[in-house]
This record gives sequence, structure tokens and C-alpha cells, in this order.
Amino acid sequence: MNIVIAPDSFKGCLSSEAAADAIERGIRRVLPEARIAKVPIADGGEGTLDSLLASAGGRRVPVRARGPLGDEVEAEFGVLSGSGAAVIEMAKASGLGLVEDADRRNPLLATTYGTGQLLRAALDEGCRDFILAVGGSATNDGGAGMLQALGLRLLDADGAPVEPGGGALARIAAIDDAAWDPRIAESRFVLASDVSNPLLGPSGASHVFGPQKGATPEDVEELERNMASWADVVERVTGVRLHDLPGAGAAGGLGGAFLAFFPAELRRGIDVVLEVSPFRDALRDADLVITGEGRIDSQTASGKTPMGVAQEARKAGVPTIAIAGSVGPGIEALYPHGIEAVFSLANGPMSLSEAMDRAEPLLAHAAEQVVRALRVGASGRRDA
Amino acid sequence: MNIVIAPDSFKGCLSSEAAADAIERGIRRVLPEARIAKVPIADGGEGTLDSLLASAGGRRVPVRARGPLGDEVEAEFGVLSGSGAAVIEMAKASGLGLVEDADRRNPLLATTYGTGQLLRAALDEGCRDFILAVGGSATNDGGAGMLQALGLRLLDADGAPVEPGGGALARIAAIDDAAWDPRIAESRFVLASDVSNPLLGPSGASHVFGPQKGATPEDVEELERNMASWADVVERVTGVRLHDLPGAGAAGGLGGAFLAFFPAELRRGIDVVLEVSPFRDALRDADLVITGEGRIDSQTASGKTPMGVAQEARKAGVPTIAIAGSVGPGIEALYPHGIEAVFSLANGPMSLSEAMDRAEPLLAHAAEQVVRALRVGASGRRDA
Repeated sequence: MNIVIAPDSFKGCLSSEAAADAIERGIRRVLPEARIAKVPIADGGEGTLDSLLASAGGRRVPVRARGPLGDEVEAEFGVLSGSGAAVIEMAKASGLGLVEDADRRNPLLATTYGTGQLLRAALDEGCRDFILAVGGSATNDGGAGMLQALGLRLLDADGAPVEPGGGALARIAAIDDAAWDPRIAESRFVLASDVSNPLLGPSGASHVFGPQKGATPEDVEELERNMASWADVVERVTGVRLHDLPGAGAAGGLGGAFLAFFPAELRRGIDVVLEVSPFRDALRDADLVITGEGRIDSQTASGKTPMGVAQEARKAGVPTIAIAGSVGPGIEALYPHGIEAVFSLANGPMSLSEAMDRAEPLLAHAAEQVVRALRVGASGRRDA
Repeated sequence: MNIVIAPDSFKGCLSSEAAADAIERGIRRVLPEARIAKVPIADGGEGTLDSLLASAGGRRVPVRARGPLGDEVEAEFGVLSGSGAAVIEMAKASGLGLVEDADRRNPLLATTYGTGQLLRAALDEGCRDFILAVGGSATNDGGAGMLQALGLRLLDADGAPVEPGGGALARIAAIDDAAWDPRIAESRFVLASDVSNPLLGPSGASHVFGPQKGATPEDVEELERNMASWADVVERVTGVRLHDLPGAGAAGGLGGAFLAFFPAELRRGIDVVLEVSPFRDALRDADLVITGEGRIDSQTASGKTPMGVAQEARKAGVPTIAIAGSVGPGIEALYPHGIEAVFSLANGPMSLSEAMDRAEPLLAHAAEQVVRALRVGASGRRDA
């Protein structure tokens, strides 16, 4: 038996690495001699850098960068072995997690400047291939701060540079690209994002993600007006109309900045991660993939890790079984994409906190039972 | 695929029939053409009569009988098709459930007389083969009432008949068998019981089961003394020493009465049920057995339904998979007996009441996932 273990993290209790270890432990109880490849997966959000470095190998480069509210933070980016691609996780420099005091969270002020510094540091390091994981941002500045860090001058009607943050976007009247980093045009940027929201409107960045970044309802209205003004300026300067563009609303409009100013391509997070990870190689000669995530339900079909994993496995003719902390309704939608069965790690009625406390042994137990059942199928088939 | 579904009840939420139906529904979603035999199982306790009639076929014979406290109750016994064996469920005439008011429960007074009446009615009906399900009794009278109903005269030192109940046993000084029903000697009695407790002592009938039948600590001491006196009388008259005999403590000592006065054999409940049910026939050409019970843990190994089912299936070379409401520790003990894997119907953290309310769809869902996993094993095997 040749099994590939490729889980996402189980949020709040197990990293994807710990989940993969637990699943392996369960399998080994039944099949001590099984060939097992562990490929922990993160799907483009926070933790992507750790996960990619763990699975593809590479090094970390520390960078002192400006945090979302202007204070200096210890950030980092990664350089992958082999491809030499830089992995930029924007949350490291511009993440909501860097503003621990919830009262200080304010997308009117928060800037993506630090993310631009990470990019510049990676360019200095010689990187020209970029993978951008943009989950968990604290910002709604349309990527303006990042552009400034890379040399773009954003000027008000008097020709003075505007201050950082989503609150200042409406004052931008002109863009001066004389100092724009020329290395960007020679590079390739892959934006790993599952956010397909446009920049503006009721499903745009300000309305959908503003509140979780600390915006009051009044703030949201102001952010929306400012972003609309910024989108008009960007369209005038670049010819790219971000207003309704799917994906432009990712990371408070940082997605839009990439699409307008960079040679960038927007891709599903899980696909980017799978391309970099050794998952595809591991599929060769595999009999089975076991994936997993904290929760699996009808939402999983919209591109989460178990779905992406199963789709790739299916292309290689390998069946996938998923184990989740909690299995919701609608999992039938996953079957056509290669997820053959879904099990929960709960082994009876229990509270959420018990399930999370005991996630590791329960996951090992569930994996053990799954493999035991598979073995029954393998030995017993007559006319199955 | 040829599947035998043989679950016990899921106590408090699903009868064994409803559990079998739910499992079938789940299987049909994956394998609409599967050959399925449903054999709901009860392991000798309350519900055994219903279960045996459902699986083996037969008829019910109503009997007006004396209840545990002397009031008349509408009882019944069953006559199985084919074998013509009578199924006597003692709880129908002498059960704790017949004394709804918990304050009235009193093993000093409660009698097995009604159970004797059921036996006599079945003898009158022509039955000579008996299956006795003795779970759920309200009594601790050593079976004295049953013996009286069948003609045995239990006399005090003055030669007068003693009154019913465990409180009067110590007054029995002599036994007159002149009117003892002669048909008993021509019959065969199988006592289906998982109780291996002796009649007397700390693990005897009075100490272990007295309290749940309403005995106070003082009552228990009195019941124990009386039972010891009764055991002495029985030994003197029959030569059978019940004091330490395993199984004699079943049903408040009714088990002992059978072993001393009847051509009776004590057997594990599940084995008796399996012998009568069409389970063994169904195993022929089966690929898989799915069993289940409310809880499966290390206790299950001591002869509960899933264990008995798996042991029989194993003899026929058929693997068994179990689904439980709750899976406890120690299930490794079940693997050597043919239970290949154990799954819970919980599909995530949930309360006990939610699991019970939704037991039917959850059980169907769990069965569906199990069959889906088996199918993966069947299609994917290379060197499994």
C-alpha cells in the first residue's frame, strides 16, 4: 500500500504537519510497512510560507519592515529550493495578527507598505519569481502602500505625497512612476488567492472584509468611496478597470494593485501550493490519498485544500478519502471531484473543546479505521 | 456486493429494526443493486421477543398473568415459525417496567409467578422447546413464584404455602412436587442470559441487582439471607448447589430455579438469538456484515451483539464492520474476533441529545461512507 497524506491544518488545534503525523501514526498501526509520503498543505492563507518551506525546502530571509500601523515589525520571506521562487506572505508584514489590540485595528490607517518592502528585499535577493499569499491582511488601501514601497509616487492635487491607509486614497490625484522598480517588469508574480470578490460594490473589499479589519459601518462607506476614487485613478493611468474585476478585492484591494501594475496572474491558492509542493510527484504509484481539514462541507467544493488535493489525485487516477473534525451537509458535491468518502474524527458525541483537545489521537484513530475498512474492501471484493 | 445488516438496537433512539433500515438506506445510496439481508438482533434482554418474531417469523399468544406485585397484567409469549419454539420474555409478566411507580418497586414482595403462568400457557399451547429471555426483572425471589405457578408447593415449617416475594423465601422449609407440571420434564429450556453472577455473595443476585429493583441496603441484607436459606432448601431437595453457580443469579435467582428444576441450559443471549435468527443462512455468500450498537468499547468483547455477530461471521469467513453511536476505548480487543473496523455515527462534535435525535440520518450517512471506503479498497488494491 502506497499512501499520500496531504491534509490542511485543523484550525485551532493541529498544524497541517501535525495532522499528517497523526494520520501516519494511525495508518502504521494497521500497515506498518506501508509506503507513506507526507505532504502537509496550506492553501494560500496564513501558514503558507511555513508549509511551502516544509514541503519544498528552502530558506527564510528576515526583513525589518513597516507594520500595518507604521511601527517596525520583524518580517520574513522565503526562497524555495530548486525554483528559487520567493514566497511572500503578506500577513508577515501587513497582517491583522500584527495588531493584537483589536481597538487599534483601523483600515483607514493600515498600510501595505511593509509588503512592498518584502517584495523589494526579495528583488534585492535576486528573486524574479514570486508567490504571494495574501490572506489575513489588516489593510484596505488598494495596495497603495505596497506600490509606494516599490517606488510609485502617489500624489494629491497639489503634487504632495499622500499619507498611508485607506482613508487617504481619495486624495490621490496623480501617479508618478519615474522611480518604479524596473525589476518588477522582469519578474513573474503568482497571486495565490481564493478571494474572487471585486474591488467595489456590496461584494467588494470594503463591504465584505472591512468590518473584520476594524471598520465601523461609517468607515466602510468612507473606505468604499475612497476605493472607488482610487480605482478611477488606476484606470486612467493603467487602463485596467479594477472596479468589477474578480479577485481585485483580495487583501483590501492589494489584489487589484497586482493585477493593474504587475505582470501578475491570479490563481487558486491550493493550485499554487500543489504546484510547488512535492504532491504531484508523490502521486506516482500511489494507491490512496488521505486529506483532511477542520471542517468539510459543501463550501469545501469551492477550492479548499481537500478539493484541490482530490482533483489532482483524480487526474492521476488515485482515490482520495478525507477526514475532518466536523463533516457538514452537502459533501455529495465533492464526490465527482475525487473525494470518495468523508469521515469525522469524532468517535461519539463530544463537545467541540474535547474534539479539539483530543484532535491528535482522534485523527490517528480515524485514519486507522479508514485503512482497516479499505483493507476489508481489498480482501473481500467479489463483484463489488 | 452481498451485505448482511445485523445491528442491535441503539438504546434510547433506534430499535434494531430501525437501525437496520437506516444502514440499508445508506448502503443503497452507493450500491443501489447490492444484495442486502437485514437481520436485526436483540441479545436476550427486553425486546428479544419482538426481535425474534421479526427475524424468524411467528405468532404472539396473549396471556393474562399475575404481575410482579400481584395485579393482573396483559402479557404474551411468542411461538416461532418453523421450530415451534416458545419465546418467553420474562419482563412481559415480571418486569421492572410493569411497576411504573418507582416507589412501589420492592423485591421483597415481587414475584415471578406470572412468568410461570406464561410457561404454563405455552405448555398448554403444545410448546416443548423454550427460549427464555430473562432481562429486566423486578424480582429477587429465586424463581419461587414461577415454580409455584407450575405446581410446586413451597411450604413453611407448619406445612402452609408461603406468600410470594423475596421476603418470604426464608420461611420455605419443604417442597412438595406432587403437582409439578409433568410436561416440563419432556421439554427443553434454553436460558438466554449474559449474566454470569452466582446466586449468593457480593456478586450475587441480591447485592448486584437488588438495588436497581428498589431494595434499600437493609433490604439487600435481608434478601441475601433469605436467598441463602432458599439455596440450602433447593440443594437439599434437588442436589443442585446454586450458591456459587455462575448464572444462577440471573433475574433475581430465576436463573438458579431453571438450572435446579428444569432440563435447562444456560447460553449467551446473542448465541441463542443468532441460532434462531436467519443470520447464519444470510452469511452464505456474504461479502460483508455491518453490525452496530449504541456504544462499542472494550465491554463489547464480553458477548454483546456486535461481538457475537462478528464471531459467527468470522467462522463463515465474512468480515464485519461495526457502527456505534459512541466508540469507547479498548476496541482493539474486538479485532481478533472479526470486527475489522469500528466507526461512529457522529459526524463532528455534537451533544448526546443531538446524536440521538439525528441517529437515523447519521447512521445512514455513516453506513454510506463505510461502503464508499470499502469500494475504494476494492477498486484500488494493488499489494494491499
